[in-house]
Amino acid sequence: MTIDSTVLATLEKQAIELPSWAFGNSGTRFKVFGTPGTPRTIQEKLSDAAKVNELTGLAPQVALHIPWDKVDDYAALRDYAANLKVSLGTVNSNTFQDDIYKFGSLTHTDAAVRQKAIDHHFECIDIMGETGSRDLKIWLADGTNYPGQGDIRGRQDRLAESLEKIYAHLGDDQRLVLEYKFFEPAFYHTDVPDWGTSYAQVSALGDKALVCLDTGHHAPGTNIEFIVAQLLRLGKLGSFDFNSRFYADDDLIVGAADPFQLFRILYEVVRGGGLDDDSPVAFMLDQCHNVEDKIPGQIRSVLNVQEMTARALLVDRDALLTAQNAGDVLGANGILMDAFYTDVRGDLAEWRESRGLPADPMAAYAASGYQEQIAAERVGGQQAGWGA
Amino acid sequence: MTIDSTVLATLEKQAIELPSWAFGNSGTRFKVFGTPGTPRTIQEKLSDAAKVNELTGLAPQVALHIPWDKVDDYAALRDYAANLKVSLGTVNSNTFQDDIYKFGSLTHTDAAVRQKAIDHHFECIDIMGETGSRDLKIWLADGTNYPGQGDIRGRQDRLAESLEKIYAHLGDDQRLVLEYKFFEPAFYHTDVPDWGTSYAQVSALGDKALVCLDTGHHAPGTNIEFIVAQLLRLGKLGSFDFNSRFYADDDLIVGAADPFQLFRILYEVVRGGGLDDDSPVAFMLDQCHNVEDKIPGQIRSVLNVQEMTARALLVDRDALLTAQNAGDVLGANGILMDAFYTDVRGDLAEWRESRGLPADPMAAYAASGYQEQIAAERVGGQQAGWGA
Amino acid sequence: MTIDSTVLATLEKQAIELPSWAFGNSGTRFKVFGTPGTPRTIQEKLSDAAKVNELTGLAPQVALHIPWDKVDDYAALRDYAANLKVSLGTVNSNTFQDDIYKFGSLTHTDAAVRQKAIDHHFECIDIMGETGSRDLKIWLADGTNYPGQGDIRGRQDRLAESLEKIYAHLGDDQRLVLEYKFFEPAFYHTDVPDWGTSYAQVSALGDKALVCLDTGHHAPGTNIEFIVAQLLRLGKLGSFDFNSRFYADDDLIVGAADPFQLFRILYEVVRGGGLDDDSPVAFMLDQCHNVEDKIPGQIRSVLNVQEMTARALLVDRDALLTAQNAGDVLGANGILMDAFYTDVRGDLAEWRESRGLPADPMAAYAASGYQEQIAAERVGGQQAGWGA
Amino acid sequence: MTIDSTVLATLEKQAIELPSWAFGNSGTRFKVFGTPGTPRTIQEKLSDAAKVNELTGLAPQVALHIPWDKVDDYAALRDYAANLKVSLGTVNSNTFQDDIYKFGSLTHTDAAVRQKAIDHHFECIDIMGETGSRDLKIWLADGTNYPGQGDIRGRQDRLAESLEKIYAHLGDDQRLVLEYKFFEPAFYHTDVPDWGTSYAQVSALGDKALVCLDTGHHAPGTNIEFIVAQLLRLGKLGSFDFNSRFYADDDLIVGAADPFQLFRILYEVVRGGGLDDDSPVAFMLDQCHNVEDKIPGQIRSVLNVQEMTARALLVDRDALLTAQNAGDVLGANGILMDAFYTDVRGDLAEWRESRGLPADPMAAYAASGYQEQIAAERVGGQQAGWGA
Repeated sequence: MTIDSTVLATLEKQAIELPSWAFGNSGTRFKVFGTPGTPRTIQEKLSDAAKVNELTGLAPQVALHIPWDKVDDYAALRDYAANLKVSLGTVNSNTFQDDIYKFGSLTHTDAAVRQKAIDHHFECIDIMGETGSRDLKIWLADGTNYPGQGDIRGRQDRLAESLEKIYAHLGDDQRLVLEYKFFEPAFYHTDVPDWGTSYAQVSALGDKALVCLDTGHHAPGTNIEFIVAQLLRLGKLGSFDFNSRFYADDDLIVGAADPFQLFRILYEVVRGGGLDDDSPVAFMLDQCHNVEDKIPGQIRSVLNVQEMTARALLVDRDALLTAQNAGDVLGANGILMDAFYTDVRGDLAEWRESRGLPADPMAAYAASGYQEQIAAERVGGQQAGWGA
Repeated sequence: MTIDSTVLATLEKQAIELPSWAFGNSGTRFKVFGTPGTPRTIQEKLSDAAKVNELTGLAPQVALHIPWDKVDDYAALRDYAANLKVSLGTVNSNTFQDDIYKFGSLTHTDAAVRQKAIDHHFECIDIMGETGSRDLKIWLADGTNYPGQGDIRGRQDRLAESLEKIYAHLGDDQRLVLEYKFFEPAFYHTDVPDWGTSYAQVSALGDKALVCLDTGHHAPGTNIEFIVAQLLRLGKLGSFDFNSRFYADDDLIVGAADPFQLFRILYEVVRGGGLDDDSPVAFMLDQCHNVEDKIPGQIRSVLNVQEMTARALLVDRDALLTAQNAGDVLGANGILMDAFYTDVRGDLAEWRESRGLPADPMAAYAASGYQEQIAAERVGGQQAGWGA
Repeated sequence: MTIDSTVLATLEKQAIELPSWAFGNSGTRFKVFGTPGTPRTIQEKLSDAAKVNELTGLAPQVALHIPWDKVDDYAALRDYAANLKVSLGTVNSNTFQDDIYKFGSLTHTDAAVRQKAIDHHFECIDIMGETGSRDLKIWLADGTNYPGQGDIRGRQDRLAESLEKIYAHLGDDQRLVLEYKFFEPAFYHTDVPDWGTSYAQVSALGDKALVCLDTGHHAPGTNIEFIVAQLLRLGKLGSFDFNSRFYADDDLIVGAADPFQLFRILYEVVRGGGLDDDSPVAFMLDQCHNVEDKIPGQIRSVLNVQEMTARALLVDRDALLTAQNAGDVLGANGILMDAFYTDVRGDLAEWRESRGLPADPMAAYAASGYQEQIAAERVGGQQAGWGA
Repeated sequence: MTIDSTVLATLEKQAIELPSWAFGNSGTRFKVFGTPGTPRTIQEKLSDAAKVNELTGLAPQVALHIPWDKVDDYAALRDYAANLKVSLGTVNSNTFQDDIYKFGSLTHTDAAVRQKAIDHHFECIDIMGETGSRDLKIWLADGTNYPGQGDIRGRQDRLAESLEKIYAHLGDDQRLVLEYKFFEPAFYHTDVPDWGTSYAQVSALGDKALVCLDTGHHAPGTNIEFIVAQLLRLGKLGSFDFNSRFYADDDLIVGAADPFQLFRILYEVVRGGGLDDDSPVAFMLDQCHNVEDKIPGQIRSVLNVQEMTARALLVDRDALLTAQNAGDVLGANGILMDAFYTDVRGDLAEWRESRGLPADPMAAYAASGYQEQIAAERVGGQQAGWGA
């Protein structure tokens, strides 16, 4: 095997959280295509997520989205998940689908609207207490479409105030991770558009507030691995939202658009201690499966992360440092590329089997009959999607 | 007045087609906000469009979208429009909202799906006959999300075949305009992504096929006025879809994001004969009003086009040519900027009044009570939007 | 006059620093075109800069670039400038043209190279003492061209150490401003690529360290006025490098590529107190005049900033706030656009004359005979450029 | 071996032309770093190129740049090359470094300047006759930096006229390939900015005129493999200029920035017949080695092309088509990715050895002593670079 036991030991601990909404229908503003077997409830989403974990051993946690995944009894939901051998993870708030939020939520000029949005986060934190979740993730859709529509500066001040109130509500072992996004759904300005803004805001809050880096949320040409390295250095990288994109926030399968970029990102994670035992970094997917099958889409995604992590761990860091110090540009680049070009798939399949997992989780899923089963069983009701 | 009679004579002939769908609800994949008074029928859309024309004298035609605007009796619809002093214009086809088109329409691998999409265009052409419309506009959402998902080359060949069949169905006085778009809703590849592709495809069809240039459908940094100049030169600029954008296809009010760009585009239109009497160029809006009011949004848009056209017509072209030939960079640029920086709004208001139009159409609309009236009257039913 | 006395009082205090290197030859990697009359010495550059100030009243300070503008006697240079009615301003360091810096300067793996770069900054600070300059501006060309070539994280740590040493050398009334740049001359990673990095680095240093925002140094689509608002809010906006760009770091005349963007930037400056008496923000140009005449290029540039500042000051901020609070998208946008579309040039010309300045500085320069004079006099010697 | 004999048979015919200028010094507008051993003459460049071919068997031809590579006796140069077992290839014209071309060459308003530029191309064609070259490659730096500086439309018309004259001068077996470039050195508009313009211009000329696609010359986010497929379909893809880029026209080693993109490009080449025996497509490198060693940089580059071609040839096209036709998104993507992730390096090394070539050309070069030899021998004189 090319992959040695040290690498395998690290890979063994790898856990990638799945987003509950990846199993629902999604699409573009032009059309959302539905598919047979799509879950109608959070319980069915958990079942699908558990299947991904069962076949890959990589995805023991499921992130919730509130209110999409609201239930009456979270203790029961926790048990339900535990029976499926997964646990409930990050709680994601939603302040972009109520009519009241048309012109903003935590940044709104109206104190009553802001309070409603803050209260929603209090509710999320309360749910976290019941689900045992550590992280509250805030992705803020706030922004404006036209110059002048809003007061950029005032909105930033109000954001700081709102976040302070939410932060104060966190339990001792809970964290707030603030996601940034270059644009969309706002078209002219976004209130948290870049890592600098997220960093400045969470730094003002305290140690339990960190930055969430969504790999699809950057301007064209942005060197994302630089941001990874920088946030790790500053001790403020709280979590990843993995996906990939060719143009905007396309939410494609992680590694699908630019596998070499994913490799470089994971190399900086390794380099910066992001896989160490005491690392604050959480790894999760945040993707849409618009035209591809959802469960295999998630399986493919966690495998992509695993395979690229394996490659990143293969980099001969001593040799690399030597070449870097010597100004040997091609030599240093060659050491990195050697790891990237190494085909780790066979080794990983073998290792997977040695752990009682299928060598080929994609094929195992196809052969499992699960897709046919849910397509047959999940008839009637309202298929889950964004907004349900 | 700064604006002389020659300029006014040109402006007097200016006509900007309104899209029926601009009056319905629109939004992003995250949320569509509704507003009181939104039309439920094509008749109500026509009524709103007629209001824009009444107050501006700039928008005598309304584009239809099939099937959103389908009716049983197009002759009756034509009369209905005529009574409102507007006429029915470009017919826009839609091959992106049926489940069957999930993997393509005119480019689909399955001949039956392609035929269904071709038949839809035949239906559109038949409707054009009844509505008296000249142009069939094809915006194709076809594309793929993942490398390998489709055969890029084969899809292009099938597109050519499908277009040929549609083209053959056109009447003598009818035209086909093929829109291109850089990306979205497809994320990896789009089958008509750039002007070159549209140009190559329509050139293969014949004289009645032309390119439609949507100002929001280009890669970041693209010099759009160059494309305008080039297509005019090649005799293949059929129509404009006006809107503006900061990031992707944001569909903002034309001129809102970069008024200087709109000025440069219109200057090349003037320069290339696009406003001449025999010009093949049709001007229309293609916008979404996600957060702003729809009717005033359309009024603002046609006024923006008018104001920028006036500025473009003010350019001292003789002086400009002299400066260009002399290699006087700052002088030439200064001549262009002088026209752009000239505030034409007062002159246009005065001229508008002299023609029996309100000096300030935005204020006139606000004072008209129309918005309150439709908000009160249009209760119940299904508000129009993308897909209705 | 549209412009009232309050606005004029603010404009009267406006001062835009000129870069000495704007008067030398510049170009692209493909070709640098020379022009008759180009300065051979810093004294000649000062003379040209003084001409810009004489005709506009806007440019009383000249930034130096070390070593390009090194002299033996800075006290004499200070007097020389004073006689021309300008003063010496920001000192710009240069660690990108020595062979030793091929793989980095303040971030280099070799402590000796770092020390050489630090020593260069000590020298700059010493010069600042002699010239009476307040600001040391650091634009760092450090970065890598290939993945793996350098250790991104280690370089950032070394940068922090190097900056700390430089910062410690500053006098009580001196400041360090750290410029960021998205890319170029490095192609894969840049050590200070974004405002977040500059902000994180200067925050670690202390109150005398601030961020320099170069308007040309951002990813495509970046909302620059947001960054302006944010840095003002954080108290860390030290200075502007004004220029404009269509694609990359094109270093065109400020306002030339997107005048509306310049307006929005200056509006946020006004909104955030950047023109207040106690504002920490310094305004300077950083441009290349590759194909246009240099002195008129600088005149045009400072006039553009003045004209857009006037427009930004015309915004009816009370009405804007009211519209914003009311969620009146088109109304708020309209208030902003009204100021932008107002033609202030006539008023400014009149006001200029009232202050003993030429109404039309561009024409006054052309008529002055200065260009012919320097073309005739400055014969022989080595024309200044990047590297001389 | 994973690679079968059919694939090897195709790879055996692969030939990638090297640009003579890759062996000279290059850099950015900020600094050009020199290195020991850099050629002073075209003969020394040929010697270096021959070394690349000797070690890889992939680069039997060298492209010339006129006037950089002008000699008195081309017959002698041809013999010189032949003795080194390489031949002289594409002739590249240069109309961007004479002062007279400051405002354009083939598009200039002054007929005398245009004629000078046309004459230069006549000279290039004459040289092609002597060198036995088939292709004249025109990369036009023409463009403007400021709106209004030039008449975009008029320049396009003049370009067409100039090209017509050059085309008429071609011999029966000679071709003209017209390169396009998104931007740089012009900053506002470029006269041949996109494939559509190049295609429209060469289509007007005739069968011997084709498009040159430089992989680094596109807007951010452009799907380059789509253009490859389209141009092959239209029969107008004449040649590739290979390199890679993260931001603008960075001219990095082909495959260095995005190896998966290179794979997709080469897959479309294979798919579209670009490697067939009668293919009109020429493959060449067009790169700068600013910080890395030049000869190893070229070796690495041709190996990258070879390795990615091998992967592209490994794609199971029958299975792919089946999956595509079935709408199996993940299956189709998986088939493509399987080829991309296959590590072909071992097989290629083995095959290389079987053909009498070094298994590891990079290591073989390092061990050859050639670099030390040229560093020692090439002392004095003027190192070649852009402009020499």
